[in-house]
Amino acid sequence: MRAVDLIQKKRDGEELTAEEISFLIKGYSSGDIPDYQMSAWAMAVLFRGMSASETATLTLAMAGSGDQVDLSPIRGTKVDKHSTGGVGDKTTLIIGPLVASAGVPVAKMSGRGLGHTGGTIDKLESIAGFHTELTREAFLKQVNDIGLSVIGQSGDLAPADKKLYALRDVTATVESIPLIASSVMSKKIAAGADAIVLDVKTGSGAFMKTVEDAEKLAQAMVAIGTEVGRQTAAVISDMDQPLGFAIGNALEVAEAVDTLKGQGPKDLTELCLTLGAHMVVLGGKANSFDEAKELLKRQLENGEALRKFQAFIEAQGGDGSIAVAPEKLPQAPLTIDVKADQDGFVSAIEAEQLGLAAMLLGAGRATKDAAIDYAVGLTLKKKVGEAVRNGDTIAVLHVREDNAAVRQVADRVRGAYDIRAEQPAERPLLLSVVTADGITRYI
Amino acid sequence: MRAVDLIQKKRDGEELTAEEISFLIKGYSSGDIPDYQMSAWAMAVLFRGMSASETATLTLAMAGSGDQVDLSPIRGTKVDKHSTGGVGDKTTLIIGPLVASAGVPVAKMSGRGLGHTGGTIDKLESIAGFHTELTREAFLKQVNDIGLSVIGQSGDLAPADKKLYALRDVTATVESIPLIASSVMSKKIAAGADAIVLDVKTGSGAFMKTVEDAEKLAQAMVAIGTEVGRQTAAVISDMDQPLGFAIGNALEVAEAVDTLKGQGPKDLTELCLTLGAHMVVLGGKANSFDEAKELLKRQLENGEALRKFQAFIEAQGGDGSIAVAPEKLPQAPLTIDVKADQDGFVSAIEAEQLGLAAMLLGAGRATKDAAIDYAVGLTLKKKVGEAVRNGDTIAVLHVREDNAAVRQVADRVRGAYDIRAEQPAERPLLLSVVTADGITRYI
Repeated sequence: MRAVDLIQKKRDGEELTAEEISFLIKGYSSGDIPDYQMSAWAMAVLFRGMSASETATLTLAMAGSGDQVDLSPIRGTKVDKHSTGGVGDKTTLIIGPLVASAGVPVAKMSGRGLGHTGGTIDKLESIAGFHTELTREAFLKQVNDIGLSVIGQSGDLAPADKKLYALRDVTATVESIPLIASSVMSKKIAAGADAIVLDVKTGSGAFMKTVEDAEKLAQAMVAIGTEVGRQTAAVISDMDQPLGFAIGNALEVAEAVDTLKGQGPKDLTELCLTLGAHMVVLGGKANSFDEAKELLKRQLENGEALRKFQAFIEAQGGDGSIAVAPEKLPQAPLTIDVKADQDGFVSAIEAEQLGLAAMLLGAGRATKDAAIDYAVGLTLKKKVGEAVRNGDTIAVLHVREDNAAVRQVADRVRGAYDIRAEQPAERPLLLSVVTADGITRYI
Repeated sequence: MRAVDLIQKKRDGEELTAEEISFLIKGYSSGDIPDYQMSAWAMAVLFRGMSASETATLTLAMAGSGDQVDLSPIRGTKVDKHSTGGVGDKTTLIIGPLVASAGVPVAKMSGRGLGHTGGTIDKLESIAGFHTELTREAFLKQVNDIGLSVIGQSGDLAPADKKLYALRDVTATVESIPLIASSVMSKKIAAGADAIVLDVKTGSGAFMKTVEDAEKLAQAMVAIGTEVGRQTAAVISDMDQPLGFAIGNALEVAEAVDTLKGQGPKDLTELCLTLGAHMVVLGGKANSFDEAKELLKRQLENGEALRKFQAFIEAQGGDGSIAVAPEKLPQAPLTIDVKADQDGFVSAIEAEQLGLAAMLLGAGRATKDAAIDYAVGLTLKKKVGEAVRNGDTIAVLHVREDNAAVRQVADRVRGAYDIRAEQPAERPLLLSVVTADGITRYI
């Protein structure tokens, strides 16, 4: 078998066999197949697509290229959640304790990541004492004991995906739905989940700009999950503005506490309940989505979700009292109001610009080794659809000091708000759900 | 400027600017742009194509990547000829002296090449004493003195093309018309020609399987030539069987002598007159194709073409007497007849198989450093359309000895003949001519 023949086969629109795809991934992992052949193949895939069975084979080949986590010592159906990312996305902090309190074990490995704010791991580390490096045994025991643990990613999960993704990033071959789908799913499968719920964002601020593309990606991922025996559901939601109000590590933990108390932002609460309910159904703790959602609502109202969060923090050495007294979280000494400079209605908020603002304040890493300031960030005071008057506070910066750089960030935040004379049409947050049974559209 | 953005631009179907294409080729030549980006770009080009102006820019960028031959010391319009290759293609041996005898200077650099038989240089070296390594001064002087010189390729012509072609070969990105066209033309332009006549083959044995594809390639090459100020014409001919009868180095020189005497195979003579006439027109030695062709026919009949061949051989140290006594060329000690095993008509001859047969006899190089046996090869006794009876000799092998390997070659030659009960429809050799003015179809 020769790589050049497989590139040509794909280029000419033919389907590769499982053996051929395994040959490519194994050869690429071992270095026998060079980057220049894989990039040509990826470009051919971008134009020609891949069948469901090709995509599933590719996913399994990448999942099998490195360590594979064995979660079998944990009782019950382990359901993982994956988000395609977004500014101010603190859903993991909320959904973890929420579904664990409903009896679905959550054994999550999470990353730090570059970007606007830290990853889930960084956000949790803003809690005094919290540590994320557990032994495998302690990790498994904690999930069996209290139903939830979140640790930093260790081991070498899906290294073939890592290598291929880095190549795609520099060869303009990222934007292929089967390649994106197999990349996400290979990591989830290597991480050992029995079932997977996907949080797929769409909108101008998201990777998938249209709901149609987001649905195609969701369908591709659900098809992979189905093909490889991991039940998968995907929720498609709008990302034309950040989720909730807080952007910044400790600020997001505090907002997670509010939400776990049942007092969180409406959009964030709704998305967490929806994603969580799908996890509960896949985890076998409810017979229908509606039943699962009702169960989770009760867990917010009766305090069980928040108590689970506290127990989880304490199990990992953190100060659990922040669950009742979030003011104990790191706080920035100074706040600066960002004011509207015109009357009108907020018609859109450029999430990307707000994320960049948070990073410039110190909430995220620009480079891998940069330090994070847990306390800084911003909170939104106005969201899409709200009326504002010239001089109204639209957002608040949480900063260490007031200086020229901070003033520039304030201008950037102001610029991220698109304020217009007419009130925009209301946009639903939840757009559709994709499962093995098909697409359900909310709109 | 970043290579990844240019790959993406091409991937998305946009046209690259001249500056962007130069950036890619310069970066690739210098090693700043890695193979894996160029192969992804080439695959995007394969799917998206290139505009005439992109193709011309690419050609000039590759032509300018290495040495550029200056033929300006030669008086007159220097017209080069390029063939897309074929088994038994000895046209250069004939056309060179033929058009030189008509007053068009031919200053040709030629390669050795791998494959079925040697290249033009190897064929000429089968003449005792002939040498192909001349100084630049001697080369230019010889063309000014007698109108013709053929030397081995020296210097580093279009190294970017060489590098890109090697990459395309292993990434299934060869089959792109703009990339093929710019590859051919970049070498011709670097070689210094003022005008170019292209011999484009089509048919099952050729790279371009259909006349439509061959015409597209011809149009792309003519468009490049026009764009960069080198008048270009392309003749498209059928390659469903080898040209002439001889395949093998000295055998082909002998056939060239016959043809220059006006006693050559009909197909070979016709193609040489046609290609040569276009060269004479571009070289300004005739006002029309018909006038040029008549002039060349006279040069065959009056012995001028053959005398020019003899003078050319002697100028490069060879034994010019082979022009009148071709039996002085190296001859194999033994001939073996290949006989038909059925009655019928020759309906096709697989040129590729005959080329392989010649190589197996020792006429061509399987590896770069292999030696060539000038004497061996084969001559066809029957060509497409002819009737054969069981036991008729269809071809003759010229060999050193009779052994099992030679018998296998004989079987291979027999297998290359497709003999059928019905006489095939006559196929014209010349299919169409493409110039800057458009396509003229003969059929």
